[in-house]
Amino acid sequence: MLDKPGLERLSRALNPQVVAVIGATKEPDRVGYSILESLLLGGYPGQILPIHPHHKVILGQKVYPSLDEAGLPVDLAILALNERASIEALDDCGRHEVKGAICVAGGYGEVGQEGAALQAELVAAAARNNILLVGPNTLGLINSRTHLNATFWPVTLKDGGVISAVSQSGGMGQLISFKMQQEGLTFNKWVGVGNRAMLDFEDFLQVLDQDLTTEVIAVFMEGTERARGFFELAGSIVERKPVVLMKAGRSESTQRFALTHTGSMAGSYRVYQDVADQFGVLMVDSIPEMVGVTKALSMAPPAPGTRVAILTPTAGPSIVMVDLLLDRGCTLAEFSPETMAAFEQRFVRVPVVLKNPLDASAVGYKAESYLDLAELILRDPGVDLLIALNIDHKNRVFPAEELVRLARRYGKPVLVCFIGPTDGASGLRDVCQAGGIPFYFSLEEAAWGAAGLVRRYLTLERLGVRHG
Amino acid sequence: MLDKPGLERLSRALNPQVVAVIGATKEPDRVGYSILESLLLGGYPGQILPIHPHHKVILGQKVYPSLDEAGLPVDLAILALNERASIEALDDCGRHEVKGAICVAGGYGEVGQEGAALQAELVAAAARNNILLVGPNTLGLINSRTHLNATFWPVTLKDGGVISAVSQSGGMGQLISFKMQQEGLTFNKWVGVGNRAMLDFEDFLQVLDQDLTTEVIAVFMEGTERARGFFELAGSIVERKPVVLMKAGRSESTQRFALTHTGSMAGSYRVYQDVADQFGVLMVDSIPEMVGVTKALSMAPPAPGTRVAILTPTAGPSIVMVDLLLDRGCTLAEFSPETMAAFEQRFVRVPVVLKNPLDASAVGYKAESYLDLAELILRDPGVDLLIALNIDHKNRVFPAEELVRLARRYGKPVLVCFIGPTDGASGLRDVCQAGGIPFYFSLEEAAWGAAGLVRRYLTLERLGVRHG
Repeated sequence: MLDKPGLERLSRALNPQVVAVIGATKEPDRVGYSILESLLLGGYPGQILPIHPHHKVILGQKVYPSLDEAGLPVDLAILALNERASIEALDDCGRHEVKGAICVAGGYGEVGQEGAALQAELVAAAARNNILLVGPNTLGLINSRTHLNATFWPVTLKDGGVISAVSQSGGMGQLISFKMQQEGLTFNKWVGVGNRAMLDFEDFLQVLDQDLTTEVIAVFMEGTERARGFFELAGSIVERKPVVLMKAGRSESTQRFALTHTGSMAGSYRVYQDVADQFGVLMVDSIPEMVGVTKALSMAPPAPGTRVAILTPTAGPSIVMVDLLLDRGCTLAEFSPETMAAFEQRFVRVPVVLKNPLDASAVGYKAESYLDLAELILRDPGVDLLIALNIDHKNRVFPAEELVRLARRYGKPVLVCFIGPTDGASGLRDVCQAGGIPFYFSLEEAAWGAAGLVRRYLTLERLGVRHG
Repeated sequence: MLDKPGLERLSRALNPQVVAVIGATKEPDRVGYSILESLLLGGYPGQILPIHPHHKVILGQKVYPSLDEAGLPVDLAILALNERASIEALDDCGRHEVKGAICVAGGYGEVGQEGAALQAELVAAAARNNILLVGPNTLGLINSRTHLNATFWPVTLKDGGVISAVSQSGGMGQLISFKMQQEGLTFNKWVGVGNRAMLDFEDFLQVLDQDLTTEVIAVFMEGTERARGFFELAGSIVERKPVVLMKAGRSESTQRFALTHTGSMAGSYRVYQDVADQFGVLMVDSIPEMVGVTKALSMAPPAPGTRVAILTPTAGPSIVMVDLLLDRGCTLAEFSPETMAAFEQRFVRVPVVLKNPLDASAVGYKAESYLDLAELILRDPGVDLLIALNIDHKNRVFPAEELVRLARRYGKPVLVCFIGPTDGASGLRDVCQAGGIPFYFSLEEAAWGAAGLVRRYLTLERLGVRHG
């Protein structure tokens, strides 16, 4: 946990005016090249100081032989050096007012005793120079809001996201990012905590808690020796914004393996699950579930209860969805007598069984009657959330814009589950999602999204927080 | 179960020379239009006979006022009529040598006692006219090999797939199809069995068993009263080709709902699971798992054992994958002393822990060293299957073609799990999949695919079937 000056320093490092890349290089397959390229591709608008003893220009950027020659105070230093050179560089950083440093090198705590000793040296060097250290053994971090891509993963950045992610694994963090992209989402901040030698989950949780543009926090964790601190902090943040956690290592074998990755104990999965529930942290089983849940939480209005209704033109998928919903804390809404009477008027000569899920069959094929039924359901005071299921069909229109207006009018969460081509229907998805309707191409992800909203409702109820 | 003449009649109906659409219509939002359009879009090369009392031409096709006027013997009749008219039409069909009929109308067994009585009338009409009836309450069926799209779901068809699907729900069948499309797969045959009033799962399993172009059979089931017959037949087919089953209705509430959909009891999920295991039917929990498993089974060589190795440039995702693998019958391969010695030569000054999963870190970034490590692993007699995990990176190349050659040389299954953009990396996927390497964008689906191969191995071992 950081004190106030520490938080300010970290905040400055995450919103830097000057970034140094120590160990920038011309070879495209090395991290010292990719880091510089990442800063440029990300569109970082501040001053970049590539540092290398011999090179003059890399990627069109003037290179300085040392921080001394560059002659500017540095907010963030990214160390593209091996595990020993990284330690030496920190003293140099200290002389140039560096506030934060990212150490990407591996070969520390994750590779045994010798590495652990090196890691202790690294931390000592950072501490004596008053530098907040990210990593080591990390991909780096990203702030899309300020177009800072401080990783060795050269990607462009899109502004506007409200979901921020903290990952103990770079690869899992990248998986979160690619899955979000596939789902039409952009992330706000992205941090790889690596070995967490100095800065840990809690420090970044603090930053993201204070960050007004972050509305949902997603965490991928292999394990931590300071689980109590993590959950206490996360549990207090949950009152303000949801924290969604994926924890690796359900099986014993996995736990043995994780021990030698980021040097952390994986811990008992079951214990994490119980504690997460207790503190209102939404635990998920997979990245698709994490992204499904964060999508719903970042987009839809809060659910006013647990009662879910499903409208569908076809029964099968809704049966499978009910399974998934009941497994995760949702209940099935029962339609009021008024709603049932209204349904009966719509299905005079159509042989269907009127219940929830409402399989409207052919009546559900036409946009107008589908919307009419959706409105009857949303109007029912016994319904807290509607999943609008539909199927792509050449001769039918899915009324995305009208559904957005309808959802707005009733203020309840509406989620769309669309059985269709992910490429061909991405336009429909974007219309829905821009209008506050999370849109899914899979039954599981739609159900997870709905359950995320319901779990959030239950958490806030339990904590006694005013919401809705 | 069909006798030999019955099977021949059904086979003729699935490979028809003349198809009648009884109730073809000009209104694009009605099924009688969509069915005709489906036949045309699918590229059906045989004779189409649209039947309607008044229309002259629909979608450029000459319309006949009745089967009498058409004056041709009909192999397959698709009834685009309501539930009563469908019954009446069957006597007419009988007079024109119709071998099979598809009844798409709902309002039969799935809507209560009155509907059940109607369904009995429907079956009686089919039986007295010696017509094999598909449905009622079905989307229809598709034979991609003969470009027959006999559904009210107008889509084009691609030839060449080896996976065939039988679904009790049209919507779930469509979900299977869209997910397959998303994964770069095409299906061979696709059957919606609907209410199974006459033709049931077993009849289509028999057809698909005999079908030389179907190599993997996927089934979505809500429930059946004839589970014993289903599993006995499926269990005998499993010796020749894998049968993958998804069964809906894990929770009690879901089972109540399924009762009023296709008129079938959902039955106890747990019992189905036990019986499926006993008969070697691969049960899956979701459509993504079904497609992940069928992809691997349709593409990769058989696994010679259960021992899985993972090669990765980043540890985190491999830890999560181990969890998923161990949950599903896979074991983790232990590398031989020779392999370990070879690894040590490759990692002289690189601080990594040499074990399975092999996190090659920076050594795994370069295509040549990644391939070199992959070959060392495949050469190890203690490894039965390799999951090659990788991450999209602007400055790195994923050696898809070389990996295909390598996999061919060693004859063991290689699966790729690629953390990257589904759109941007679909080219890599297509190269891999054309070369017999199932390619996945999700950890879960890759692990399910690998586990599918391992479960298939275990099944064949248990049944004592020679394989590999």
